[in-house]
Amino acid sequence: MSDVIGGETTLADLPLREDLRGRTPYGAPQLDVPVLLNTNENPFPPPKELVDDVLASVREHASGLNRYPDRDAVALREELAAYLAGATGVAVSGANVWAANGSNEVLQQILQAFGGPGRTALGFEPSYSMHPILASGTRTEWLPEPRRSDFTLDGSGAAEAVAERDPDVVFVTSPNNPTGQSVGLDDLRAVLRAARGVVVIDEAYVEFSARSSAVELIEEFPSKVVVSRTMSKAFAFAGGRLGYLAASPAVIDALLLVRLPYHLSVITQAAARAALRHADATLGGVKRLVDERTRVVGRLRELGFSPVPSDANFVLFGLFDDAHRAWQSYLDSGVLIRDVGIEGHLRVTIGSPEDNDAFLAASERVSEEISR
Amino acid sequence: MSDVIGGETTLADLPLREDLRGRTPYGAPQLDVPVLLNTNENPFPPPKELVDDVLASVREHASGLNRYPDRDAVALREELAAYLAGATGVAVSGANVWAANGSNEVLQQILQAFGGPGRTALGFEPSYSMHPILASGTRTEWLPEPRRSDFTLDGSGAAEAVAERDPDVVFVTSPNNPTGQSVGLDDLRAVLRAARGVVVIDEAYVEFSARSSAVELIEEFPSKVVVSRTMSKAFAFAGGRLGYLAASPAVIDALLLVRLPYHLSVITQAAARAALRHADATLGGVKRLVDERTRVVGRLRELGFSPVPSDANFVLFGLFDDAHRAWQSYLDSGVLIRDVGIEGHLRVTIGSPEDNDAFLAASERVSEEISR
Repeated sequence: MSDVIGGETTLADLPLREDLRGRTPYGAPQLDVPVLLNTNENPFPPPKELVDDVLASVREHASGLNRYPDRDAVALREELAAYLAGATGVAVSGANVWAANGSNEVLQQILQAFGGPGRTALGFEPSYSMHPILASGTRTEWLPEPRRSDFTLDGSGAAEAVAERDPDVVFVTSPNNPTGQSVGLDDLRAVLRAARGVVVIDEAYVEFSARSSAVELIEEFPSKVVVSRTMSKAFAFAGGRLGYLAASPAVIDALLLVRLPYHLSVITQAAARAALRHADATLGGVKRLVDERTRVVGRLRELGFSPVPSDANFVLFGLFDDAHRAWQSYLDSGVLIRDVGIEGHLRVTIGSPEDNDAFLAASERVSEEISR
Repeated sequence: MSDVIGGETTLADLPLREDLRGRTPYGAPQLDVPVLLNTNENPFPPPKELVDDVLASVREHASGLNRYPDRDAVALREELAAYLAGATGVAVSGANVWAANGSNEVLQQILQAFGGPGRTALGFEPSYSMHPILASGTRTEWLPEPRRSDFTLDGSGAAEAVAERDPDVVFVTSPNNPTGQSVGLDDLRAVLRAARGVVVIDEAYVEFSARSSAVELIEEFPSKVVVSRTMSKAFAFAGGRLGYLAASPAVIDALLLVRLPYHLSVITQAAARAALRHADATLGGVKRLVDERTRVVGRLRELGFSPVPSDANFVLFGLFDDAHRAWQSYLDSGVLIRDVGIEGHLRVTIGSPEDNDAFLAASERVSEEISR
């Protein structure tokens, strides 16, 4: 990089924090491959009516781009609350909802308010790999606890672990990424009763599940329950970056103390509100993906693989003697899936019927390679 | 809030971090007043061609909203670099630039990488009040040092303070908010020579100044200089939330370790790129604002006020026996300006000619009140 100004200086020359030295940035490989089934995106592009409405909303607000946005995103939060109330039957209001640029920012704000130096966060692994990264970024000590060998969560064991380790923040991912299973409300209640701190139920994939949402538990445990959600998956809005959470209003008061002022742009607020107006159309794609999931799981079983039961838009499957080599075989067939670092397993996103056909065709070849 | 679920729970019931207890959220009052001159926004709405181009860009990318954005915002960074190179004459490239949702997020990332628990950040006060708040949010100890009584920065005194207190991060705001004066390159060099850590030159308002940019210093001090910028002010893009910085590529490598993945939405990247294509038109408004600044400062002097010389789109002025009471008098006249907490002074944003007329008319009344 000697042609770039300052290009001779390296990371080693900088006064970087010691705990960051030697790290590599988070992120799945962004490769140019025909079939992308590695980041749990929704394969269905937004319908034309949604795009038109996003554009009309952006147009309406664009003439005020020289002004700062509504710092508290009141209208967006009220509309997210209305969606949640409709989806869960719980009388969620705007005062119960907070939003940020993706659920990662929401989770980071929770850790800034309730975690941080001298505090701890506990999670049941394997789970969403950003949880320990966000803990590290906020200098919260990470306490990993294991799931069962079949990747389900043992509710009473989880409650015991929480009681014993006494963390300030607990993460429960339901449906769990990257393994797929949901956690029932009674198991969540056991964890909540054992917890002294805040319990974050990460429901990024909940729309793909038939199980009840933890939003039902806010009233029962108002000082503990935080339910995080995202528009990246079922809402097919990964590019729009809108994460949100539901909790008691006091939790939102706490997040106001740590959020960056004006964190959500005028355009993000307008576009997300437009996308919410078309929730019925977008969420119609969920049923198709759930049907495709059933088809993919069935065919994987026929081919001799062991798919883990999934309530989400992805499936973890095995067993491979060498998962990374199998991942490469899929890639050689033009299908990018995810090696999530679980021995013997890979994760595939449920895509469009054509994407899934390509994945299943590649799976036949991989299955033959394995049995050779 | 008893009608809201969880509404009986208060902040005192939550396991909030001790250092956040009793705090109130950052933010200027958002009041419904005819003349808004309190947040240093650009009064000129974006030109029609810019709005049309933003819409065309959003349309082009909206069909891919179901996919995650370019995690590293490569195209946007290259275009920001081209703008910086044109504005400063320094051969800045995309590898020298990083972008985030507002310069607050950029500054937060710098503190996450180079500050944090057990580390310190030093600033020369009065200055941008978010610097200590961001330090606190990242648990970086804040070391305030005073400016001269006329609010200018004493370069050699600043260098001595940096040498003595040995901070990990130094903030120098130039032009300084809320006082208006720029810091010359030789004074910056003195601070840089004295510094062991990273020196952030916050140039949010630099386009309103005729002084040289610290971007010229990157090659001379590649392991220390970070120049932060924003599109919120001269670019009239406060609602779009786009902050950026220039530094050596190693600094950007460091920020990749702490940034949230996919932090910049598809729409933010597209809209900011469109706004950059119309930089000439938008920045044309800067000259008008500088002329208005001259007019406002001149009239304030005539009225017996003491405006502080400003290189920015705002003016700090006094002297008031009771600044808060004077602020209320302006508000009673329908003009919202900012009480930034500096004894005897208030800060007014330079607005449109009509806004400034209203402010100057109110100033006449306030001046009469004071002399009564």
